[in-house]
Amino acid sequence: MERTPTIDLACELIRRPSLTPEDAGCQTLLATRLEALGFRCEHLAFGEVKNLWARYGNSGPLLTFVGHTDVVPSGPEMQWTTPPFEPSLRQGQLYGRGAADMKGSLAAFVTACERFLGDNRGPLRGSVALLITSDEEGDAIDGTARVVRALRARGERIDMCLVGEPSSEVVIGDTIKIGRRGSLHGHLTVRGIQGHVAYPQRASNPIHQFAPALLELTSRRWDNGNASFPPTTMQISNIHAGTGATNVIPGSLQADINFRYCTELTAEDIRFEVEHTFERHDLEYQIDWRLSAQPFLTEQGPLLDAALAAVHDVTGRHARTSTAGGTSDGRFVASTGAQVIELGPINQTIHQVDEHAGIAELNTISAVYEHILNRLLS
Amino acid sequence: MERTPTIDLACELIRRPSLTPEDAGCQTLLATRLEALGFRCEHLAFGEVKNLWARYGNSGPLLTFVGHTDVVPSGPEMQWTTPPFEPSLRQGQLYGRGAADMKGSLAAFVTACERFLGDNRGPLRGSVALLITSDEEGDAIDGTARVVRALRARGERIDMCLVGEPSSEVVIGDTIKIGRRGSLHGHLTVRGIQGHVAYPQRASNPIHQFAPALLELTSRRWDNGNASFPPTTMQISNIHAGTGATNVIPGSLQADINFRYCTELTAEDIRFEVEHTFERHDLEYQIDWRLSAQPFLTEQGPLLDAALAAVHDVTGRHARTSTAGGTSDGRFVASTGAQVIELGPINQTIHQVDEHAGIAELNTISAVYEHILNRLLS
Repeated sequence: MERTPTIDLACELIRRPSLTPEDAGCQTLLATRLEALGFRCEHLAFGEVKNLWARYGNSGPLLTFVGHTDVVPSGPEMQWTTPPFEPSLRQGQLYGRGAADMKGSLAAFVTACERFLGDNRGPLRGSVALLITSDEEGDAIDGTARVVRALRARGERIDMCLVGEPSSEVVIGDTIKIGRRGSLHGHLTVRGIQGHVAYPQRASNPIHQFAPALLELTSRRWDNGNASFPPTTMQISNIHAGTGATNVIPGSLQADINFRYCTELTAEDIRFEVEHTFERHDLEYQIDWRLSAQPFLTEQGPLLDAALAAVHDVTGRHARTSTAGGTSDGRFVASTGAQVIELGPINQTIHQVDEHAGIAELNTISAVYEHILNRLLS
Repeated sequence: MERTPTIDLACELIRRPSLTPEDAGCQTLLATRLEALGFRCEHLAFGEVKNLWARYGNSGPLLTFVGHTDVVPSGPEMQWTTPPFEPSLRQGQLYGRGAADMKGSLAAFVTACERFLGDNRGPLRGSVALLITSDEEGDAIDGTARVVRALRARGERIDMCLVGEPSSEVVIGDTIKIGRRGSLHGHLTVRGIQGHVAYPQRASNPIHQFAPALLELTSRRWDNGNASFPPTTMQISNIHAGTGATNVIPGSLQADINFRYCTELTAEDIRFEVEHTFERHDLEYQIDWRLSAQPFLTEQGPLLDAALAAVHDVTGRHARTSTAGGTSDGRFVASTGAQVIELGPINQTIHQVDEHAGIAELNTISAVYEHILNRLLS
């Protein structure tokens, strides 16, 4: 198994215990490597969160690699075969927290740039940048979203965004994520009238009031999805009512409602339908909505074409496209109108004990990234 | 307004701050008065709870006055016009915690015995007793229920039970309680499978699973009541599910279900119907049932006849009979097969700030009690 610059850099990153929102020096290390290539690096710190914006070239189009240096906690260290922050190479695998999510792909993109810019001293047909945060696994408030706003404020526009999240399922490049469903959250309060269970006629039980609307919401099929997206789904994640006493009718009920919605519906459609249901059932209620992510989709365009071709060039495989799964920082870039795809390592061991990535696989993903750079910017 | 021995004794009891399960010397005071009349007094302490069993006479039938010396907390003392444990006589009212619930009626029964036994030195047609606890407002485990069991164990049988709880609504004697609905409690756990809201197909949301059964239970009419009882009612008093996180489908749901049921149904009927509902909806559930009180009813008999006649003798009013409201210690005596009625002061200010009872009303209730003694035992 070849010990390449990609594997060496991944090891150096894993050795830095950058528990979210800590960066632990990862971004300085990356900036040093990128500045040596001619990137202009800006360190943008917001609160506890560190962000790096590194750009090579001035003209458009601008291809940006989006990634993060922070990792989730290791879980019980005793259960790891080797310590989570000591990279270990064995049986063709690189073990360590962040090997797959996503220090491996960070290293792969930096070494891809090194090879690409080393071979290509002439002017690019555009620019390449890296947007790296230390707060993807945390609140994600002072990370990518803030940097995107700062870039927008000064008129710097990302045209194509390659997110290095582990999109692959079984082998490298089998899946490219081309969008995500939106995420809409509602915090509901249903008001009743408190009282004694022996005198229900003097009270109004918010649990009983809510029951018909609850059944209607949970049994409804919201849409059938479409060619690009799985159907919209709704889940009640929390419900709480009651004083703890068994003989008291509670005065109010609280519930959290989460929608993952596809492009068949808008957030406004959903809000209207839910509130209309509550009104039809005469609930005295209040609902506070929070839109965490609008759905986004990159069905075609030069970025997706280049990624599909690069996967095929390097691996001989035809990647399938997908919009399944939870949110990623891609949503913040998509909101600017950029093309956004996610392509990275295999996601089978992320957030687990003994997280690992194949040594060959990280070298392969670096080669795929290099092919994408070549196809789009040479 | 006449300052009678009833009012003086009520004041002495109020002065003792007997917050449940404290007795604060009330029972000793009562025992002293009763022993002077020839009652045999037994102090039965179980844990923190003090109980007094005082009996006059050996033969049957045995009429027992059931009452309690403990009171509920005063609530914010600043809101009281005069301190809760300093009896205050003003505008024809006796103010203080316990004036109506139920130190006033305790005093009224003791002075009724004093007048009754003073006038009637000959042998009674039966016996009279008082069963007084310091734990009616609390758990009610080591109080009346324990004393009833102890009496039963030694073959001492209560034939007629007069509970001194404040049964009157607007004027003294307008209402006599002749029974109560039963109380059955179920603690429910619905099991699901925890997961991420973006992947509902890999989880099973217990809130969603429970929704159809919840609607069925809350919208069902259980029975129409009958001539003696209001209909059976069901209330969900608590419902809880969720980790607090908005993106996690919870693994289980807990709920408390309380039935107040009339004699149209048995506790077994209710358990069967509820469990059958859960099974029809394929719930994975567990329910732990607790029967706090079976329904009881004294529709006729010498005790009710005497009480109705006594109210009419003293006040000229025809009392109405009722089975409405929550449980009382009467349930523990009713389970022995005794006749049980409740007749006492006006209940409008019980458990409130500035609790009070009319001075004339307490004298009236003492006269009613004396008439009952005369009618049943002379």
